[in-house]
Amino acid sequence: MKRIILASASPRRRELLEKAGVHFQIIPSQGEEQITGEDPAQIVEDLSWQKAAQVAAKVEGEVIVIGSDTLVAYEGNVLGKPHDEEDAVRTLQMLQGHTHQVYTGVTVIVRSESDEITKTFSKRTDVTFYPVTEEEIRAYVATGDPMDKAGSYDIRGDFSVYVKEICGDYNTVVGLPVSTLIWEMKQMGIDLRSEDYV
Amino acid sequence: MKRIILASASPRRRELLEKAGVHFQIIPSQGEEQITGEDPAQIVEDLSWQKAAQVAAKVEGEVIVIGSDTLVAYEGNVLGKPHDEEDAVRTLQMLQGHTHQVYTGVTVIVRSESDEITKTFSKRTDVTFYPVTEEEIRAYVATGDPMDKAGSYDIRGDFSVYVKEICGDYNTVVGLPVSTLIWEMKQMGIDLRSEDYV
Repeated sequence: MKRIILASASPRRRELLEKAGVHFQIIPSQGEEQITGEDPAQIVEDLSWQKAAQVAAKVEGEVIVIGSDTLVAYEGNVLGKPHDEEDAVRTLQMLQGHTHQVYTGVTVIVRSESDEITKTFSKRTDVTFYPVTEEEIRAYVATGDPMDKAGSYDIRGDFSVYVKEICGDYNTVVGLPVSTLIWEMKQMGIDLRSEDYV
Repeated sequence: MKRIILASASPRRRELLEKAGVHFQIIPSQGEEQITGEDPAQIVEDLSWQKAAQVAAKVEGEVIVIGSDTLVAYEGNVLGKPHDEEDAVRTLQMLQGHTHQVYTGVTVIVRSESDEITKTFSKRTDVTFYPVTEEEIRAYVATGDPMDKAGSYDIRGDFSVYVKEICGDYNTVVGLPVSTLIWEMKQMGIDLRSEDYV
């Protein structure tokens, strides 16, 4: 039996992959990833590779390991998860009324008996917010929702009522471009949703 | 106490409005709406107005009535809900691998003691599908999910794994551009999420 492993502890990535009908196990990557470069697409691709490679090195046999990383960029600045509530408020005050970019990188390591193939890609989605008042931002931050999210918001949560529009893949913003992941694997002759995987 | 009434039986519109924190009642519009014109934006605006006006005429007192209509357009042809399973298969075969447009029109009738204001707008979102095989389409249609949806799919359902990207408001595709609705009302001095409404 071949295994698919998601190298991420993110509940959002797990949900997206489950909803897509993929059978997989979770082994979160551990240890600090090293940020290299300044281009957001390159950063998320690198980090997704580091996560997948770290987990692939720990497991044996035929396996497909999926690593992923998401960041938010605004006017050339890269935004990660907020340090505290005030940081989340500052981030959302900066993003409100404007368009920012969300990048998610994905690396898939496909190891068979005879070889190992690594596929890395990234997707970018532009997200535009309506103007949001400080009172509305503080009410949202008080829910605790922003604290573990790149860019300090969850597009599926209460802050979604301020999203004017997006351009790109919705799930890239959630944390995993699952349709592109399935499509790219299909191009390599792999059906991630097959019953062959456990 | 002022009332907000959603003039729609759509469970998707109800969910979106509930999730946005709006307190409202549901009185679905009844009777056949008349399609006028050929421009998709004009059609959904007209139909949303007919739905809102039909319900507003039945209720008394201070009230806000929200009507909405959604359609899918592909290469100039307007697509409604499928007639049967084969119609859904044909529609999805036409849409797969291509970009189509989803239009949702919204009309809000705001009636106070002294006057009545009607606001109508529409939003368009472009949706691009990856190529999808007939086998995959038939498996999806067999779930029954397409049958009550314009364009024969629910972007939140199992067919979402084939969505490559969208450009526009996500909830416009679900059936109600709730962020724009809240924003437009705010511009009129109305906070739809206020506790003043029942």
